[in-house]
Amino acid sequence: MEISEMAAVGGNEHKQETICILGTGDFGHSLGMRLLKSGYPVVFGSRSPQESSLLPSCAQIFTHTEALKKAKIIFLAVHRENYDFLPALSSFLDGKVLVDVSNNLRKNQYPESNAQYLSKLVPKAIVVKGFNTVSAWALQSGSLDANKQVFICGDDSKSKQQVMDVARSLGLTPLDQGSLLAAEEVENYPLQLFPMWRLPLTIAFGLTVFFFFYCVVIDIIHPYVTTNTDVSYKLAISVPNRIFPNVSLILLSLVYLPGVIAAFLQLNRGTKYERFPSWLDRWMLCRKQLGLVALAFAFLHVLYTFILPTRYSVRWRWMHSMIEESKKNKTMELNKVQSWRVDVYFALGMMGFGLYVLLGITSLPSVSNVVNWREFRFVQSKLGHVTLLLCTAHTAVYGWDRFLQSKRYKWKLPQAYMLGMHSRYVDVEKNDTHNKALKSGLVYCTSCRIYMGPRL
Amino acid sequence: MEISEMAAVGGNEHKQETICILGTGDFGHSLGMRLLKSGYPVVFGSRSPQESSLLPSCAQIFTHTEALKKAKIIFLAVHRENYDFLPALSSFLDGKVLVDVSNNLRKNQYPESNAQYLSKLVPKAIVVKGFNTVSAWALQSGSLDANKQVFICGDDSKSKQQVMDVARSLGLTPLDQGSLLAAEEVENYPLQLFPMWRLPLTIAFGLTVFFFFYCVVIDIIHPYVTTNTDVSYKLAISVPNRIFPNVSLILLSLVYLPGVIAAFLQLNRGTKYERFPSWLDRWMLCRKQLGLVALAFAFLHVLYTFILPTRYSVRWRWMHSMIEESKKNKTMELNKVQSWRVDVYFALGMMGFGLYVLLGITSLPSVSNVVNWREFRFVQSKLGHVTLLLCTAHTAVYGWDRFLQSKRYKWKLPQAYMLGMHSRYVDVEKNDTHNKALKSGLVYCTSCRIYMGPRL
Amino acid sequence: MEISEMAAVGGNEHKQETICILGTGDFGHSLGMRLLKSGYPVVFGSRSPQESSLLPSCAQIFTHTEALKKAKIIFLAVHRENYDFLPALSSFLDGKVLVDVSNNLRKNQYPESNAQYLSKLVPKAIVVKGFNTVSAWALQSGSLDANKQVFICGDDSKSKQQVMDVARSLGLTPLDQGSLLAAEEVENYPLQLFPMWRLPLTIAFGLTVFFFFYCVVIDIIHPYVTTNTDVSYKLAISVPNRIFPNVSLILLSLVYLPGVIAAFLQLNRGTKYERFPSWLDRWMLCRKQLGLVALAFAFLHVLYTFILPTRYSVRWRWMHSMIEESKKNKTMELNKVQSWRVDVYFALGMMGFGLYVLLGITSLPSVSNVVNWREFRFVQSKLGHVTLLLCTAHTAVYGWDRFLQSKRYKWKLPQAYMLGMHSRYVDVEKNDTHNKALKSGLVYCTSCRIYMGPRL
Repeated sequence: MEISEMAAVGGNEHKQETICILGTGDFGHSLGMRLLKSGYPVVFGSRSPQESSLLPSCAQIFTHTEALKKAKIIFLAVHRENYDFLPALSSFLDGKVLVDVSNNLRKNQYPESNAQYLSKLVPKAIVVKGFNTVSAWALQSGSLDANKQVFICGDDSKSKQQVMDVARSLGLTPLDQGSLLAAEEVENYPLQLFPMWRLPLTIAFGLTVFFFFYCVVIDIIHPYVTTNTDVSYKLAISVPNRIFPNVSLILLSLVYLPGVIAAFLQLNRGTKYERFPSWLDRWMLCRKQLGLVALAFAFLHVLYTFILPTRYSVRWRWMHSMIEESKKNKTMELNKVQSWRVDVYFALGMMGFGLYVLLGITSLPSVSNVVNWREFRFVQSKLGHVTLLLCTAHTAVYGWDRFLQSKRYKWKLPQAYMLGMHSRYVDVEKNDTHNKALKSGLVYCTSCRIYMGPRL
Repeated sequence: MEISEMAAVGGNEHKQETICILGTGDFGHSLGMRLLKSGYPVVFGSRSPQESSLLPSCAQIFTHTEALKKAKIIFLAVHRENYDFLPALSSFLDGKVLVDVSNNLRKNQYPESNAQYLSKLVPKAIVVKGFNTVSAWALQSGSLDANKQVFICGDDSKSKQQVMDVARSLGLTPLDQGSLLAAEEVENYPLQLFPMWRLPLTIAFGLTVFFFFYCVVIDIIHPYVTTNTDVSYKLAISVPNRIFPNVSLILLSLVYLPGVIAAFLQLNRGTKYERFPSWLDRWMLCRKQLGLVALAFAFLHVLYTFILPTRYSVRWRWMHSMIEESKKNKTMELNKVQSWRVDVYFALGMMGFGLYVLLGITSLPSVSNVVNWREFRFVQSKLGHVTLLLCTAHTAVYGWDRFLQSKRYKWKLPQAYMLGMHSRYVDVEKNDTHNKALKSGLVYCTSCRIYMGPRL
Repeated sequence: MEISEMAAVGGNEHKQETICILGTGDFGHSLGMRLLKSGYPVVFGSRSPQESSLLPSCAQIFTHTEALKKAKIIFLAVHRENYDFLPALSSFLDGKVLVDVSNNLRKNQYPESNAQYLSKLVPKAIVVKGFNTVSAWALQSGSLDANKQVFICGDDSKSKQQVMDVARSLGLTPLDQGSLLAAEEVENYPLQLFPMWRLPLTIAFGLTVFFFFYCVVIDIIHPYVTTNTDVSYKLAISVPNRIFPNVSLILLSLVYLPGVIAAFLQLNRGTKYERFPSWLDRWMLCRKQLGLVALAFAFLHVLYTFILPTRYSVRWRWMHSMIEESKKNKTMELNKVQSWRVDVYFALGMMGFGLYVLLGITSLPSVSNVVNWREFRFVQSKLGHVTLLLCTAHTAVYGWDRFLQSKRYKWKLPQAYMLGMHSRYVDVEKNDTHNKALKSGLVYCTSCRIYMGPRL
């Protein structure tokens, strides 16, 4: 083989194998262009070769039978509904590689996968499923950053290898998915919409709704009912900024909880060779997504916190308290405990957020690809726990001694920050806290996180 | 073949093929090192073998003819200007694979590509173009995260395959670019400097310059001419923070506009099998870059907004108004409509920015590689439109009823926020607005986005 | 070969080669699952085949000898300590490919690599080292975004190629590392913990400690000793926010310094073909990491700066000064030079941070993979220098004329911003600066970066 190759080489005779494409739609068209660009001779098979005017000019267009005669690898770029012309061509497909690139409109639309159905229609052809995850657009633009993964499956390993070689020549990354039984999974893949994100997003949505109503009751309805104060404008920023940190912290703890449960289960069972219950499996598989949703909420919390001093209502409050204060002719003193507490509170939060962002960056596929397993575990597990610790400490310093003050329990409900262990709007009660607060210089408005005068 | 292989294996006799490198410069040196590290025997061909002292010690250095005799794959690591020694070696190159790795100093420096020129010089060799996109540094450091794409082209598919196998062994990702005609494109690739970014950056630059002069006229020259007030210090932060959101919003809308135009064209023509005009093609291909430039401007807008309360001039204004206010002995009341409006304005902006960042993250190559086409379209199209909507609403809430107030049209010019539908400095007119503003508690300075007293 | 293939194809007879796995632990189990999923027939070899109940149901379990007879590629998934059963099976391993996937607990635990030891134990087998960098978890989950790099090394290139083909079929990316001598390096790889990050993190840690003590002496101990003022609460935010920008700027300059040194060395030596001293080599190889640590510090600096106006102590100071001011009945005037200076200071810092983030994004592996060498150098070198320039200008504008004022040199120590050329807390001296500051409207607190009244 080596010798004959070398002999033939002088005349540049090693042409790539001709490839046949049945179907002249968008996908067939784009695939042909890309194959031609990579040096493959391409023939198109069309029902009416004269009318297919938009095809690449250097491709040849024939009738189905003519085209099939010229190639050993045939891409079938037609919809499943139009497969019926194939049995008649059965003799021309004998022993050839027939690549099924079809997709359906919805999951499990048919009882069996398109590729298996095709395999029954033309049993003499060797059916390989593949290329259905690649878009016509990605093939045409040939852009370096489109999804390059091509899932391939089929019963004959040699044919599969040939199709994978074609994919590699086009700059795509073929992934062997096993026998034709996997075709169903391969066909369902491009139809799915973030299946791993569904559970985390549902949990996040549920928690958001719960905290929203909880905060509305405590922060907006309670003052309205008890003191007839309308603070409905808090819906836009104050309430969300109560929700975000709580949900973020709960989600972050949900990332690390299943590992603990799994360890307990294994200890309890005395073996690690037993399958986990399926809910735990599902939970463990979406930990990364849970963490990223938690990061998104933390990010919003940071944005909503930084905008606070620019808000009209916060500025109004502060100006109001300042004017009240200036009328008193007393000298305020800096409360050093308060200074420490607020600064530590912010510092913990910001260090926690910094680590949060680091965790997010290392979970980017391209970053996790260049770290080894030990490094990945170090970042995601050790740094992750430190992040959780910092954020919990951030909440705990926020809580301080508030959980002991009975008047903060509106309608006997626990404070919101306790639920996510965090962020509770502390309405400054008129009589006692006001005086106490003024003694310590200023009243701290925990909804705005700034110091201000008494609320009117 | 299988049998003979297995027989030979006992003695570990499957050595990798010897590779010859002509040229002992930086690239030849680094390539040799990397090949040796991957287990290839390497021979260097040099004009003066004795003097090439810096080569890796385990590589052998011979004269050109000696070296060529020992290998079937030859890497030619010399500049095009020095190709003239090759015709004399023609008989030693007969039927061998000659890999041209050369680059030029500028695009289209010569009438034909180096590889095609080489192919004419030594017609008996099989020329393959490749490896010119890899840097000597990347080969030496063998770092996991350097650019690993190697574009390969050539007329003989078997030889091309052999060179691609070598590239794969070195941990690189070869991409077949077709016949030797593609060599010109391959040679131009490492010389280009962000060709896809040129149009978006030009548009962004043009818009920035336009808004800069527009804002300077309205915000700095107008007050100077009409009231002799020098507010030139606004050039550093206030004016840029007017420019950024406008440009960002316009760029974001430019991302989604060509899709609409294309759809109209297709509807109008009644077919999707007709080529778009080239300006539309070009526009559609740089949508991603437009979006990322828009994100960069939005990011700066966020930074410039968060710094506002820390600025000296903003603090001075606020302190000034507060002192004026405290002299009046009147009780200010919280304007609830204003609270709502400002908070909604900020909330919309921050939610929009959050989605903006999400769009940016999903356009990272490694992220878009692990989502399927349906998911990518969902994020980039649906979430993209929601982002555009949120940011437009952010601007609309900012605008509120300002577009009705005739005194805001300085020199009959529309307000800047209307141009990008956004951000207009509203100078508080002394007589009427001042009183009206004080009635509502405070005057809102839209350049600083805070409430303050009357401007002096 | 082609003909016999095509003949056989009709019956779908090209099955993938059977693969044998010795060892039924976690890794063997997961590897078997993944191979089965990709269509490989798998046989397990076990000491006690009856008891291995947890293995995938479609895999066959045999005694060692039975299993070895059925396959040509054998994965050895047992620890080095348990290799002693192999010499007895030597005749069954004759000429077969034995893949050593073992890892050790720590680097250089044994005098020779596991693979070389194995090669001596069963000299008739062809030992290939590989797959040790892949985790059982990654194999099981088959997740698209886990680390897919598989380092392979071995003395026989054909066997190595076969193992690399298996890896490719599993969707992994094999990287040829050369002969079995490289096994030690391959075995050490998964045991390393961020070796490239060690030097940059050590430098950053050292600088942080130094600046911490320096700032504590100047900002906290000095006021306590000289005026008995307790400002220890500054430890949480003010002092870190002095440390971060200094360390960040020094680290960023360390990124660009070695290039300059290298250029000088080359000019001095008159040649670029001489090896750099090893310390310079080490330094140059960790420039990327230095830059990313610098970015992390800059990010924290930005977070700590944006939180300033929300801090209790900052607000207290400001309120205090305002009340003092309002008692004076004088009209403050806006200091325009101050406005310019502070705004320029912030604008430079934010533009610098924007470019910093851009540099960080382009150093993500997936981004640097789609830019060519010229583009990468443009961003990392040209934009990098602009970033350094902007950040230095940011510091210089901060410094202004402070370096001339002798009273700012506490205990004759230079100001902290001068060390990193940055950020120096300027304590407002009671007598002279106070008056001067009040003349210009307000006193600027450089630790908080806001304008305030005199410190008490």
